[in-house]
This record gives sequence, C-alpha cells and structure tokens, in this order.
Amino acid sequence: MKILVLHGPNLNLLGHREPEIYGEMSLEMINQKLEERAAVVGAKLEIVQSNHEGVLVDALHWAADRVQGVIINPAALTHYSIALRDAIASLPLPVVEVHLSNIYAREDFRRRSVLAPVVWGQITGFGPLGYLLALEALLTRKAW
Amino acid sequence: MKILVLHGPNLNLLGHREPEIYGEMSLEMINQKLEERAAVVGAKLEIVQSNHEGVLVDALHWAADRVQGVIINPAALTHYSIALRDAIASLPLPVVEVHLSNIYAREDFRRRSVLAPVVWGQITGFGPLGYLLALEALLTRKAW
Amino acid sequence: MKILVLHGPNLNLLGHREPEIYGEMSLEMINQKLEERAAVVGAKLEIVQSNHEGVLVDALHWAADRVQGVIINPAALTHYSIALRDAIASLPLPVVEVHLSNIYAREDFRRRSVLAPVVWGQITGFGPLGYLLALEALLTRKAW
Amino acid sequence: MKILVLHGPNLNLLGHREPEIYGEMSLEMINQKLEERAAVVGAKLEIVQSNHEGVLVDALHWAADRVQGVIINPAALTHYSIALRDAIASLPLPVVEVHLSNIYAREDFRRRSVLAPVVWGQITGFGPLGYLLALEALLTRKAW
Amino acid sequence: MKILVLHGPNLNLLGHREPEIYGEMSLEMINQKLEERAAVVGAKLEIVQSNHEGVLVDALHWAADRVQGVIINPAALTHYSIALRDAIASLPLPVVEVHLSNIYAREDFRRRSVLAPVVWGQITGFGPLGYLLALEALLTRKAW
Amino acid sequence: MKILVLHGPNLNLLGHREPEIYGEMSLEMINQKLEERAAVVGAKLEIVQSNHEGVLVDALHWAADRVQGVIINPAALTHYSIALRDAIASLPLPVVEVHLSNIYAREDFRRRSVLAPVVWGQITGFGPLGYLLALEALLTRKAW
Amino acid sequence: MKILVLHGPNLNLLGHREPEIYGEMSLEMINQKLEERAAVVGAKLEIVQSNHEGVLVDALHWAADRVQGVIINPAALTHYSIALRDAIASLPLPVVEVHLSNIYAREDFRRRSVLAPVVWGQITGFGPLGYLLALEALLTRKAW
Amino acid sequence: MKILVLHGPNLNLLGHREPEIYGEMSLEMINQKLEERAAVVGAKLEIVQSNHEGVLVDALHWAADRVQGVIINPAALTHYSIALRDAIASLPLPVVEVHLSNIYAREDFRRRSVLAPVVWGQITGFGPLGYLLALEALLTRKAW
Amino acid sequence: MKILVLHGPNLNLLGHREPEIYGEMSLEMINQKLEERAAVVGAKLEIVQSNHEGVLVDALHWAADRVQGVIINPAALTHYSIALRDAIASLPLPVVEVHLSNIYAREDFRRRSVLAPVVWGQITGFGPLGYLLALEALLTRKAW
Amino acid sequence: MKILVLHGPNLNLLGHREPEIYGEMSLEMINQKLEERAAVVGAKLEIVQSNHEGVLVDALHWAADRVQGVIINPAALTHYSIALRDAIASLPLPVVEVHLSNIYAREDFRRRSVLAPVVWGQITGFGPLGYLLALEALLTRKAW
Amino acid sequence: MKILVLHGPNLNLLGHREPEIYGEMSLEMINQKLEERAAVVGAKLEIVQSNHEGVLVDALHWAADRVQGVIINPAALTHYSIALRDAIASLPLPVVEVHLSNIYAREDFRRRSVLAPVVWGQITGFGPLGYLLALEALLTRKAW
Amino acid sequence: MKILVLHGPNLNLLGHREPEIYGEMSLEMINQKLEERAAVVGAKLEIVQSNHEGVLVDALHWAADRVQGVIINPAALTHYSIALRDAIASLPLPVVEVHLSNIYAREDFRRRSVLAPVVWGQITGFGPLGYLLALEALLTRKAW
Repeated sequence: MKILVLHGPNLNLLGHREPEIYGEMSLEMINQKLEERAAVVGAKLEIVQSNHEGVLVDALHWAADRVQGVIINPAALTHYSIALRDAIASLPLPVVEVHLSNIYAREDFRRRSVLAPVVWGQITGFGPLGYLLALEALLTRKAW
Repeated sequence: MKILVLHGPNLNLLGHREPEIYGEMSLEMINQKLEERAAVVGAKLEIVQSNHEGVLVDALHWAADRVQGVIINPAALTHYSIALRDAIASLPLPVVEVHLSNIYAREDFRRRSVLAPVVWGQITGFGPLGYLLALEALLTRKAW
Repeated sequence: MKILVLHGPNLNLLGHREPEIYGEMSLEMINQKLEERAAVVGAKLEIVQSNHEGVLVDALHWAADRVQGVIINPAALTHYSIALRDAIASLPLPVVEVHLSNIYAREDFRRRSVLAPVVWGQITGFGPLGYLLALEALLTRKAW
Repeated sequence: MKILVLHGPNLNLLGHREPEIYGEMSLEMINQKLEERAAVVGAKLEIVQSNHEGVLVDALHWAADRVQGVIINPAALTHYSIALRDAIASLPLPVVEVHLSNIYAREDFRRRSVLAPVVWGQITGFGPLGYLLALEALLTRKAW
Repeated sequence: MKILVLHGPNLNLLGHREPEIYGEMSLEMINQKLEERAAVVGAKLEIVQSNHEGVLVDALHWAADRVQGVIINPAALTHYSIALRDAIASLPLPVVEVHLSNIYAREDFRRRSVLAPVVWGQITGFGPLGYLLALEALLTRKAW
Repeated sequence: MKILVLHGPNLNLLGHREPEIYGEMSLEMINQKLEERAAVVGAKLEIVQSNHEGVLVDALHWAADRVQGVIINPAALTHYSIALRDAIASLPLPVVEVHLSNIYAREDFRRRSVLAPVVWGQITGFGPLGYLLALEALLTRKAW
Repeated sequence: MKILVLHGPNLNLLGHREPEIYGEMSLEMINQKLEERAAVVGAKLEIVQSNHEGVLVDALHWAADRVQGVIINPAALTHYSIALRDAIASLPLPVVEVHLSNIYAREDFRRRSVLAPVVWGQITGFGPLGYLLALEALLTRKAW
Repeated sequence: MKILVLHGPNLNLLGHREPEIYGEMSLEMINQKLEERAAVVGAKLEIVQSNHEGVLVDALHWAADRVQGVIINPAALTHYSIALRDAIASLPLPVVEVHLSNIYAREDFRRRSVLAPVVWGQITGFGPLGYLLALEALLTRKAW
Repeated sequence: MKILVLHGPNLNLLGHREPEIYGEMSLEMINQKLEERAAVVGAKLEIVQSNHEGVLVDALHWAADRVQGVIINPAALTHYSIALRDAIASLPLPVVEVHLSNIYAREDFRRRSVLAPVVWGQITGFGPLGYLLALEALLTRKAW
Repeated sequence: MKILVLHGPNLNLLGHREPEIYGEMSLEMINQKLEERAAVVGAKLEIVQSNHEGVLVDALHWAADRVQGVIINPAALTHYSIALRDAIASLPLPVVEVHLSNIYAREDFRRRSVLAPVVWGQITGFGPLGYLLALEALLTRKAW
Repeated sequence: MKILVLHGPNLNLLGHREPEIYGEMSLEMINQKLEERAAVVGAKLEIVQSNHEGVLVDALHWAADRVQGVIINPAALTHYSIALRDAIASLPLPVVEVHLSNIYAREDFRRRSVLAPVVWGQITGFGPLGYLLALEALLTRKAW
Repeated sequence: MKILVLHGPNLNLLGHREPEIYGEMSLEMINQKLEERAAVVGAKLEIVQSNHEGVLVDALHWAADRVQGVIINPAALTHYSIALRDAIASLPLPVVEVHLSNIYAREDFRRRSVLAPVVWGQITGFGPLGYLLALEALLTRKAW
C-alpha cells in the first residue's frame, strides 16, 4: 500500500514559529513518525510540502493511479482553494483531511473548509496525532 | 483508564433505518467493537445512548471525576444544543466529537457544530471507524 | 388502521391560555373530535402530549412498526428540533405536520420549520380543523 | 355555497410534464374530482387557470361578492407576486393556499410564500389530494 | 402640457377595501380631483389603471413622445417589477413615483422600491394628497 | 399657522459645494422662497440649521406646542440618528421628511432612512422644489 | 407572596467549574441568600434546577396559579428554547430573566435571548447579585 | 428545423433608447440577421416579443411540440420570473438564454438569473452577436 | 459614595409623551425617588440629562475620579454611539445600563446595544423601577 | 489573427475523470477542434493549460501585444482569483469566458464569477461547444 | 502651508486610560511632536479635539479656504458619522485619516470606516507615528 | 538595516496599464525612489515582484532572519490569500501593508483585506507615496 501525504502552505515552519497554536513538533519529526508507523505494516509514504497551490494540485493528479490513499493538511488553502477541491473530487481514492489545531475554535474564516464536502473524512484538532489517526483510517478502512 | 461513550438521539436506530446515510452496522455492534479494542489495553467503557438532551448533560456531569476521556456522537444535538456545549466546556477532560457521516457534505444546517469549539478534536465521515479512531486518540494522546 | 397523534410542548394549555392566538378549544376536545371521526371508519388513534423532546422522539421510534401514519403538531420544537426531524426522516410512514395558527403570519422565527422538508405534507393555520384535515389526508391518501 | 378555484402559471401542464415532481394527474382530472365532491353538498365551483398574473388578480376582484371562499394554487407566483398578495388581503373571504409538491423540500427560493401571511391557511405537499383538503376546509369551517 | 397617470394593481379597489391602510377616497375621486387641478392650468391627463404589469409597460412606451411627464403609483409592482423599472429608465421624461401609505412604516418587503433609483422623485405617505403634490412637481419643475 | 423648518448637517454649504449632487441654490435662497410662499397664506416659518444632532433634537422638543407642522431635511443624520427619530415620534404634529437628491439612486447606506417610519410623509429627489412640496402638503392637508 | 426560582442546565455546577466566568459562589449558597432575603418580607420561594428543558416547562405550567412571580436563569436554553418562551408567554405572571455573566460581552450566539421578548424584564451581568435584584423587582413592583 | 426566438419586456425599444447600454441595432435588424442566417441552413424562426410575462409563458407552452430549440432574452424578467423558469423547465427542448449587455458588470440585482439553472446554456455580453451565437449553438449542438 | 446618573436624548420628555411606551412617571419624579433612596444610605447623586452625545461623553470623562459608580440610560444612543461606548470602556468604575422599556420586545434596531459589552450589567424592562435596581446594584455590590 | 486560449486548473483531466459533469471529450480533442476551425480562417491559436494561477497571469501579461483576443476557461479560479481578474482588466483585448458546465445549475459557490464583470462576454453550459462559440465570437465581432 | 489636525471623541484621554490599546503617549505630546515637525518646514498647524460631532463638522467647514490639508483621527465617529463624511467630501482639500490602533485587528464594528471612501488616504495601526506619517504625506504630496 | 519589499500580482504592469486607477509611475521608478531614500540612511532593500502566491510566501519565509522589516503591496492577493496572511503572522518582524489606490473607495470586494489583522500597520490610497511612508514608518519606528 502506498499513500500520498500532502502538507500545505507554511507547514514547513511547524515547530519553528507560533508553537502556542501549532505545537512544538517539526514537520520532519511528524513525517518520521508517520513513516515509522507505515513501515510496521509495510506501507510506503510519498510526502510533499509546498507553498504553491499549483504544486499541490499537480501532486494530486500524479497520485491518481500511483497510490491507494491521500492524507492532506491543506493549511491556509483549506478556506479558499476550489482548485484543490476539484482535484480531490476527481480522485478515485479515499482522501483524509487533517488539521493540527481545532479550526472550529479559531477565527470565523477558519471554520469553513471548501474541501470538506469532497473528502472521505476530516480529523481536526488533535495536533500531530491527527496525522497518525488519518494513517490508521486509511490502513484500517477495509477492515471496518 | 475509563472512558465515557455517549450516543445522541436516534442513534439507537443505527443499522435499522436509512442505511444509505448511516451504514448497516448497528449500535450494538459498534459498542461491542469498541469494548473489544478497549479490552486489549485494559481500558473500560461506560456507554450511554439517549434521545433526551437532559440525560446526556447529566451523564457528562457524572463523568467529571469518574472517567479519563469522553467520546460523544451528539447526532442531531450537534447543531443546537448549547446545553451540551456548556456541559462539555465545564469538563476537565479530553472530549472527542464523532460523526458517522461527513456532515460537511450534507444539508447546510448540518455543517455547523455548536460543540466543536469546546472539544479536544473532531472526527467526521469515516462511518463506525470514526469511533475507533476516537478511542485511539484518547488511548494514544499522552504518547504523541 | 392505527394512527399516532403527537402534541408538542405547551399544547396541554390549549383552551386555557392565550385564546386569541390558539383558540378556545381544549386539547381534550380536539382529541375527542379526532377519535369520533376515526371511529367512523374504524381507525384507532394513539395520542401523546409531552413537553419533553426526548419523549416525542421515543414515541416516533415506537410508532415505526405499530401505526400506519403520524399526525404531529410539534409546537415550539418546529423551529429547532433536528432530533425530531431525524426521527421523522427515519420513519417508513406518512407524517402530517399540523399548526393551529398561521405560522407564516407570526414572528420571523416561527416561519421556518426544520421538520417540513421530511414530512409528507404540512397543514397550517386552520385552527383545530387542521387536525381533522390531517386525519382525512391519512385516511384518504390511497384513494387519490 | 360557491367557491373560486384559481390555478396559477404552468398548472395547465399538470400530468403532461415533469410527473416526477407534480404527479400524473391532469388539471382536468383534478377539477372534475373537485366538482364531484362539491356536487355532493350542493356547492358550486368557479375554476380559472391562467399564466397571467393580471388575470388572476382580476379574478380575485371579481370574487369578492360572488363566492364564499377561494382555493388558490399560485404556483410560481407564490414566491414573488405581491400583487396577488394584496388582492387576497383585500378579500373579505377565507382563502386557502394549496401546493401540490412539498415546497419546503425543494429549492431555497420555493420555501418562501409571499402570500402565506394573508391567507386563512396553507396546505402543502399532498399532491392533488391537497385541493380536496382545501375544499373540505372551506365546507367544514363553520362546523369546527 | 400632457401628463400620464398610471395606477398599478389593486388600486381600482381604493375606497372600497382596507380603508384603514389606504383611506376612504375612491380612485375615481382621486382622478377627478387631479383633472380639476390640471384643468386650472390647462394641462391634460391620460389616466390608466391596470392589474397587468405588461399593460403598464406598454403605456409607458406609448407615453415617450406623447406626454411631458408621468405620475405612477406602482402599488405592489413597486417591489419587484424590474420590467417597469426598465421602461421608466428608457423614458426621456420626468417620472414621479407616488405611494399613498408610508411604505417605510409597513412590512419589510414594502420598504424597497426597485423603481426609485430611476425616477425623478418619490412622494410617500400623504394619502391621495400625494398625487396632487406629484402633479404640482411636474407643473412647477421648470420654475424652480 | 406656524411651521418649523429644520436643516441638518452640512446643508449650510448648499450652493457652495458639490453642486452636481445638491444643486446650485443656496440655503438662504431656499429659505427665502419658502417664506415668500408661506407669506401668501399668512403662515409663519421658524427656520433652524445645525450641524449638531442635539440642537436639532432640542428644536423638535421646543416645537411641540408652538408650531402646527415640521419640515425636516435630516441630511446625513437620516441614516443613523435614532435620537432624531425618537424626538419626531414623540411629536403630536405632522412631520415631512425632505431630501434634495434622490437618495435611492446613491450609495447603499443612503437608501435607508431611520426616520421614515415615524414621519407623516417623505419627499425625495426633486431638489429645492421638494421643500415647497412639503410646505404645500402641510398647508393643504386638511383640505384633502 | 410565593415566587418560583428556576435554574437551567449546568447551573448545578456553579462554584465548582469555570469560576473565571461564573464566579465562585455555589448554587446552594445563592439559593440560601435568596431565601434569607425572602424570609425578611415573609415571601416563600419554590426552587427548581434541571438540565431537562421539559422539566423546566412543566415547572412553569405548574406555577401558573400557585405563585405570584418567576425568576428564571435559563442558562444555555436562553438561546434556543422556544418551548420555554412559549411557556413563559402563556403565564399571567411577571417573569424576570437573570444572567450571571454579561452575555453581551461573550460569544455571538450568547447575545440573543429568545425569551427576552416575553419576560417582564432582564437583569444581566451582576453575578449572583442579579438574582437578588430580580427578587427585589418582584417584591417592589407594585410600589413603583 | 424550427426555432422559437423570444424577446422579453422593453426589447422592442432596442436601438431607440439607451444605446450606451443596449447598442444601436434595432430589434427588427437583429431579427432579420437571425432569419438570414437561419435561411442558409434551411431553418425557420418563430419570433415573439412581448412585455407581458403571461404571453411569454404561453409561447413557451406552444413551442413544446412545434420547435426543436428556443432562444430567449428574458430581459427584466431574468431576475424574478419564476413562472418563466417553470415554463422552461417543463420543456423537453434545448433553451439558450441570451443577454445583450454583460449583466455581471451592471447593478447587483441584474447579476442573478432565476432562469439560468434550467437552461441548456447562457450567452452574456456580446451585444446582438449573442443571438447569433445562440443560433449557432442550436444548429451545431448535435455535431459536437 | 457618589454616583453619576446619566439620562440620554429625549428622556426629558418622560411622562409627557408616549406614556404607553415609557410610562407616566416624569424624569423629575424618577430623580427624586432615586435621591430619596440614596439619602437613606448617605450616598450622593450627580444627575445629568442631555440630548447631546458630546455632553454625555464629557460627563463620563468628568466622572472618572469623582464618583464611585455610574447609572446610564443611553436612550436612542444605545444603538449607535460608539463614542459613549469608548468613554464607558475607559472608566475604571462600575457602570450600569438601564432601559425603561423591554428593548428586546420592540423594533429590531432597538435589540442591539453597542454599550452592553463594556458595562458591568444591564437592567431592562422594569420601567422606572429599573433605575432603583441599578442603584441597589451599585450600593450592594461589595456585599455580594 | 492570433488568439490565446487559456485552460485553468484540472482541465487537463477532461475526458478522464467525472465525465458526468464535464463530458467525455479530452482537452486535446477540444484543442484540435479549435485549431481546425481557426485554420479555416487563417487564425492562429496559442494554447496554455496550467494548474498554477501565477502561470495564467503571466500568460495574460504576455498576450497583451501579441494576440487579438483571449478565450479563457478559468475553471476553479473563476470563483476566487482576483489576480486573474486584474490581469484581464488590464488587457486592451476582448476576453471571452467559457464554462463547460452550466455553473448556475451547480453548487452555490460556483454561481459567482469574479472575472465576469471584466470580460467582454461569458458563454456557459454548452460543453466543449462553448469554446467554439467563443472562437466564433472573436472571429465575427467586427462584422456585427 | 497650514494644516488642520482634528482629534475625535475620547482622544483627550490618550495616555491616561487603556494604554494597552492606545499607547502611553498623551495627546499633548503628540501635538507637540507634530508642531515640532511642522515648524521644520515652516508649516502651521490648527489643532482641535472635541467629543462633539457637530464641533468637528463646524471645524471642517471652517477649514475649507483656510488650510491646505487636513489630518483627522475620527476615533469612534469613524464607524457611524456620515455627517463627518459629508463634511469631508465637500472639502476641496486632501484629507488623511489616521488611526492609532490597527482597527482591522479589533472588534468587527471597528473594521469599517464610513469616512474612508472620501479621504485621500488612510494610515492605520502605527500608534502616534501615524500622525507623523500623515503630516509627511501632506508635506510631500506634490513632490511625488 | 535591511528591508524586504514585496510587490504582488500584476504590479509589474504599473505605469503601463490603467493609469487612471494606479497612476503613471512604473514599478521600476518606484523601486528606484525607494532605494534612493533607503541609501540616505544606509538601509538596504531586497525587492521581489511575483504573480505567484507561492513565491511571495517563500520570500516571506526567507526574510524571517535576514531583514528587519517588510513592506508588502499584496495587490489582488489582499482579498483572499490566507496563505500570505499565515506567512506574515509567523514573522517576528514589523510588516507594513501598502495599497496604491484607496481600496475603500473601490468595488466592495476590495474593501476587505485578509492580511490587515496581522500586519503592524496599513497605508492606503496615497499612490506611490504610500511606499515611501511605509519605508519611513520602518525607519522611524524605534524613535517614536
């Protein structure tokens, strides 16, 4: 099993800035933890971080016939990137949307995800643990 | 470790009606699966289902010093029960909100949870698997 | 044929208070008139009044395989009880929503019924006569 | 007793087009059924269908001192014809508003009737049976 | 000088119905008073009342090169007839909009005139006297 | 007969600035024209202009038992001065609201008058002529 | 004189949780203070706390002919319980609405009370002292 | 092939008034150009212009089994005629909506077409050329 | 103890106009009653009424180090005077907002107080008694 | 004549995914058809597809003095890319906006184009044929 | 060169109250710094602070032909004083709007300035430095 | 001291297109003027213009520990780029937002900046001079 993990704009700063909102764990550490977990069941991860909407759309196109599931933390693009939404909607794959912070407890504009209606499920507010839950969801989904 | 699992109004019908929205697994089966998983790590579950908002509020009050975490699927009350919200906000415990269906892909009024701003995290759209992810979150939260 | 008749919060006060809005006929008199009409065609009525949302939801669950139709005047719950809505939506039965007063000629918040989209039909503004029309609708529906 | 029955724009197409929304019964059949029922109690019907708002307003003016009640299915005009509303408000007669489909389960713009606040009562969603209920309401109203 | 006076839907009922809102003076009396005033200065009036939007639009087209000013009480059409608005906007003539009642003291939907932005001026709330003021405005406008 | 004429903020600039919106006639000229017309029928005018909301409110209080009618051009205060509204509502006198420009053809915020619901009538868009029409209205109102 | 004191959902937690919002005084202490004050003038209090909307509605029905006034802190139900509103509206008694915190300085959804339009008066933001003021209001109302 | 061409209210004025918005070509010239183009491929046009909503609805009913396509410029009715919408929705024919001016660059209320959701396609802003494109669309649709 | 009592625009009319809304007690009588009550406990009142927003702001500035509490009935300014709000927010004193009528049972625009979020508490709807309750609140606040 | 054809995000998937919405024709086939038509009249096409907003903006800048017209299907960017809008507004060229599906019959957020106010015209809902119509418009515009 | 500097309501409190929002510099110090800077280039300042809207409007009228530029910090009046807006719009002078705090980072109602559309430019959020920048803008504007 | 100057989409066109909105000065000239001013005090500028949101985000990340302040004219991205907002919010640097035109005097959608709440200050409407003021603000901020 192969899974694409997409990290949106500014997530490369994780652990370096605004830890009171996003926590102290760096993106590298999160990726490493995910890869360790994946390795246990022999799954492989393809990981991309970009501040460019277009790059993320391209990655989703690339994934269509190369992976069996997608984990995406769209970050700021959550709230306006209909291009990402359309790219996800076109995928014949389960997509899990992850948010580190509880977006429903923040500014008004962060409470609406334009992607949510087209993903399989959304996991919000657990910090880095959310990524792990997303991975479990993809690994376990056939079993439930 | 002890965890309270709360099921809101109409969830006793799970598996019996509208399977195209809520799936075919009954509430009894979900509860059993959760108890099996909990048993593996020696955790105990207290499970309550009610169609009465007041009963759910009472249960949350009861839980304050008797459990270490709460899983709640507030069902229809998600969208208007500020009484549930206040009860959750008063709890010194991690609370995980679970929705079987992707509420962001349904009617407009289902896209707003009045509880979400006061829970630890929300898991939406994975069907019964969402409950398992919630349980994992509570069991794993210290480790991440 | 058996029909469940549900009266929502405060309807036990009918005829006793605010007659300028709700008229002078008591709930007992309405129920009696309905039973007389039902008796003519050999139909039976199960009548419940409650000020508790949960009791009304429970009654709807009970009705699923015991009656052939439901008449409900949800009263104040009309405007916010998504729990009632979900309970109605799950019923494989024709449900008729009745309002004594013309809710569209009253305060703004009374002009929206969260139940209306999931009932068979709505009858609004005829006073107690509305209940009779609802009964006629259930008795006649196969004939038209 | 004499009653005016008004059918609004496009209702002449009933039974011929979009039967999945409006049913398979033609307007002629509905009118005939109503006349049969009226004949039983010696009531007479004056029936008008028009695609012209002005014609419907004129008919309501004509009715003021010639009939004892009005049944109106305003169709598309339900949602914007304040001219019809004013004509109804000026009538010293009970007016019943009928809708074949459940307008509260359709597009947003169909959920608001600008006429509803000035009619005696509204009957929505029972298909052609709604006309019969409206007739019963007018015939029975003195008795309740 | 020749002036077109247009009366919209239901104004033929003036003086006959709802006098608490529209007063007790009939349309005939208003027209007669206006003609008397016009006669004093040798002006002529062309007066039209219709419940048909199309007839009013046609009348405005007719007026373009036959009169020197227009008085219009659009009644219910005030609030939605963009067709009337476009007809007025196309006229190279001063148009005065008159309302008998104070539309700003009535229901919300009556507080917006879709015609107002394209007329010369609006006179609201003086009862039949409003028509006279409108006539004065057209007769006097060159002098001020 | 005595009439209070109130001119709101910035109207002292009339004729001096922004003639493309407010015209070229100065406030002094308007006042003089009004006094000439009033003199014809032996009426007296009390004229006040102020840029201070409080002064205008005080003037309305003063007027209660000293004049028989009020003409007010509230200018910018039209859109937010509930204090002026309350002062007008407390007056047992006919009050006419005048606007030089057609406020319904200008910026959105100018299209709502918080005073309009409590005045006798409103005259909008005729330039200085509007004041004369207001005077005519007060002089003629008993006659119609 | 007898007065009903109603405490809504979660108020049993007063003094135990979230003291930074609701203060440190327990519900028992507030009740005792109220009873001491009432005793001074020989008034009696009937005190009810419930997390069930239906129980509060039942209590209001019970009160109609047994007490001379009602003090209600509807807590979370303030914002959506139209059932409570209707129950209050049906009471021929003065009802005082009390809020411990200043609801107008909190989240948006707390700034609207659906009960406020039907109570005699509302007292907001004085902490437990608000209950005492409510009691004074009921005891003194005839004297002012 | 036969095609119905419908021109809505005020379009008879084309070329005569407001050329800065609607251009200088008269309706007659547009019709002639369309007929010339149609003649090239042996298609016939039935052309109707009316200021009456009802006439346009009647024409659409007439067209159902007499033409193979409809071109409609609903003009002012674009923004409120749900009667036209319903008539179009009932047609088993391709309907093309045409607007001479770019309605999205004009007043707010012109930016919403209540017909657009039920037509085959919309062509906006090309002046009279829009009609030709509509005709091409109907003539070519089978070929693409 | 010294307390500033501020009465906003038009309150000098109390008892003289619109008694059906504001009651029959004059402002002088209210002030006298307040002073009598204050005298009992040796408190002093500084009382100001003004129709000028600026005068009220100046009075609040003056009060900062001269009184121990403020009672303000902002009247019409309640709904728009952010200047008053800022002045109150800058005061290191408890401020009580009083409304004679139940502003939540009146026009929509009266249901929002721009001052409420920055006062200590609000007392609404008890008529003149509200002022007394406000005074009690300031006198008693240390004791509770 | 030279024309720039711009295809926005995800359009490279045309024909491969979601054919029920976007049809079965691939982007390559559409481009080829357009080039064949252009070749007939000796026109040349410059065709760009990109998932990057910046690339599309750059292309529009490039076009300013190199082509005589632009056809753009902005896809998802239709609804939020003000950068594209500004780039189009700066072009001294006719720009035609094309949408394959009828965006007015889809989700709410797709019904608003932020580009529409600054293009020459918009063609919506004809499938790939829309591109051809756009090309015709640019080729024919001088002739009408 | 002469410049009018206007300070709105409550700004006389600067440095004395709420320093966490408005900083610790008093208005006198700000004025002194501005005068020092002006003196360098031989410019003169006319400085006015008032809590009265009318006084500020009067000052703007006075300025029209006496100064070459205006700096205004309208404080609370920013959000509702259309009277100030109209006074500014009538000035044939460059006006600079200054806010000490970043109004876009504060309460919702502070994010809208009714004056902004009619000033030359706005400077927001730099504390007292904003006044200096405004002065530089007026002194430098011819040079750029 | 080193400062990053960021120019958003389409600003490379400055001076070349739409001079009536954006002025006649090219971006090169603005940059040169800024560098001249910076040179006077020995400050250095890093200047970037891009039509790609991602490039601007990357530049802000780069700046974090390399410059002492940022000047950004986000152009079209002002209104929707939450990615830019998050990048700015993460910077431990003063950021000044500059707009050439007065965005509050333009289309509605331009009146909201999603960046404004997280910048130090905003300068709007002074044309190219705004950049200079921004530079002054950064150079002077310690001194005030």
